[in-house]
Amino acid sequence: MSDEAAVGSTGAGRSKGGSLIGVFDSGIGGLTVLKELVARLPGFRMVYFGDTARTPYGTKSPETIIRYAIEDTEYLLRLGAKVIVVACHSASSVATEALKERFPGLPIFEVVTPSVKKALAVTKRKVIGVIGTRATVESGVYERLLRSLDPEVKVYGNPCPLLVPLVEEGWLKKPETRMIVKKCLIPLKMKGIDTLVLGCTHYPVLKKIIQAKAGKRVILVDPAEELAEEVKGFLETHPGLARELAPDGEPRILVSDLTPAFSRVARLFLGRQVQLLKAEDAPA
Amino acid sequence: MSDEAAVGSTGAGRSKGGSLIGVFDSGIGGLTVLKELVARLPGFRMVYFGDTARTPYGTKSPETIIRYAIEDTEYLLRLGAKVIVVACHSASSVATEALKERFPGLPIFEVVTPSVKKALAVTKRKVIGVIGTRATVESGVYERLLRSLDPEVKVYGNPCPLLVPLVEEGWLKKPETRMIVKKCLIPLKMKGIDTLVLGCTHYPVLKKIIQAKAGKRVILVDPAEELAEEVKGFLETHPGLARELAPDGEPRILVSDLTPAFSRVARLFLGRQVQLLKAEDAPA
Repeated sequence: MSDEAAVGSTGAGRSKGGSLIGVFDSGIGGLTVLKELVARLPGFRMVYFGDTARTPYGTKSPETIIRYAIEDTEYLLRLGAKVIVVACHSASSVATEALKERFPGLPIFEVVTPSVKKALAVTKRKVIGVIGTRATVESGVYERLLRSLDPEVKVYGNPCPLLVPLVEEGWLKKPETRMIVKKCLIPLKMKGIDTLVLGCTHYPVLKKIIQAKAGKRVILVDPAEELAEEVKGFLETHPGLARELAPDGEPRILVSDLTPAFSRVARLFLGRQVQLLKAEDAPA
Repeated sequence: MSDEAAVGSTGAGRSKGGSLIGVFDSGIGGLTVLKELVARLPGFRMVYFGDTARTPYGTKSPETIIRYAIEDTEYLLRLGAKVIVVACHSASSVATEALKERFPGLPIFEVVTPSVKKALAVTKRKVIGVIGTRATVESGVYERLLRSLDPEVKVYGNPCPLLVPLVEEGWLKKPETRMIVKKCLIPLKMKGIDTLVLGCTHYPVLKKIIQAKAGKRVILVDPAEELAEEVKGFLETHPGLARELAPDGEPRILVSDLTPAFSRVARLFLGRQVQLLKAEDAPA
């Protein structure tokens, strides 16, 4: 056990009143999204829920991911969420439609649309690569969305499922990681991509290696910033709701399972020590 | 989607009556145990449950693994299980005690005890290594059990969490896999182990590489066979129960989530095509 794990346990989700922005992810990778949200919306009341008891989502079926995404959203709604941010690429890719059907009228933001807009804005030759989990890439949602906005664009996806465990083990600079990143990018490089969407919350941590292996000229798209800008823009045009999401200091970070390893990875993603709270009343 | 996935969906667990041997695992790695059971107990009625919707267990906390193991056992009991086999090393390591407390009188077999007996039988210098998931190695259960049976024995554990995703991706012969296996074994080799327990259902698939990197003289212990022998021995001394577990043809293999990738890995572990059934009434 390490001393770095600041841990706790709470059913406190229920006890604190007030409206909030609810962010969920299959685990803790989505903290990169929370970080960008906090930077742009300081003082807004936010709760992050990481479903660490059932992580990962990216190896599971669309049916199961949709069920989990609905349960996560219902949990955040019980805590008072008035806006939902899906920080998980796998859930964004396969469950967004189901969430919008299930919760009509609820503002739901996800990571795919902002990545797509950014990729189209920066590509020159209109040849875009997408890397992500198997669930994300096999959903085909990037290709559909990209081509619905620009039918001329060519899109190539490749699942890179080994990158998540490598990041979670902290193997950020090891030769094996470099080799696996290289292998993952070869089929995309052969297609001549000039833009690469980092379609998984874990990949930005490997940005330097990915850039090196993809080549200097390939532009990497990390959707966390774009997504946070979208949420900010939405709240600026909804001042009533923005007022309701009153200042509340630090965001709370709840997880469905807690281990020292999860705390270590959380620190990696947020760039600072962070307190994870075990949510006893969470789904899973 | 691949054509190799023979899939189906069932709540049929409930509809078939009769007593059975219930085997569970966090996913499909435990099929190696089922294979050995079927070889020794042909015709006995068996149901395997793989909790693929919440897989893996080995990265999760003891508290969560115990909860899942209890739910999996309850599920198998509802299906008619009279004997429980815990094929998952992580669950065997952290949840056996809790299961025995929760279900007194129920015959529960797990993978740790047979590995320990075998390791003690084969070690010459009494220096034993254990590799497994983080949950398994950090539980310290191998060391406790080995030393309770022989206080002179020295036990060294090292978690190798990357091997599970490498196997599940089918990277069985890639140089990266060889390098990662080598790295994982270095600290154990430095301790001079002469015996190595493969403390995770996935590792036997990498037996050749592990043997090469551990050195020819190190004896590898794979508990699946020993465990199956134990169950067989138990039934020979309990003929009444054995009669109750009447012939039923092929074992049923139920999973809480179904994807083509899970079917592919199942084939890898069983050495033949296999039909996985989605268990709609399973926990998770």
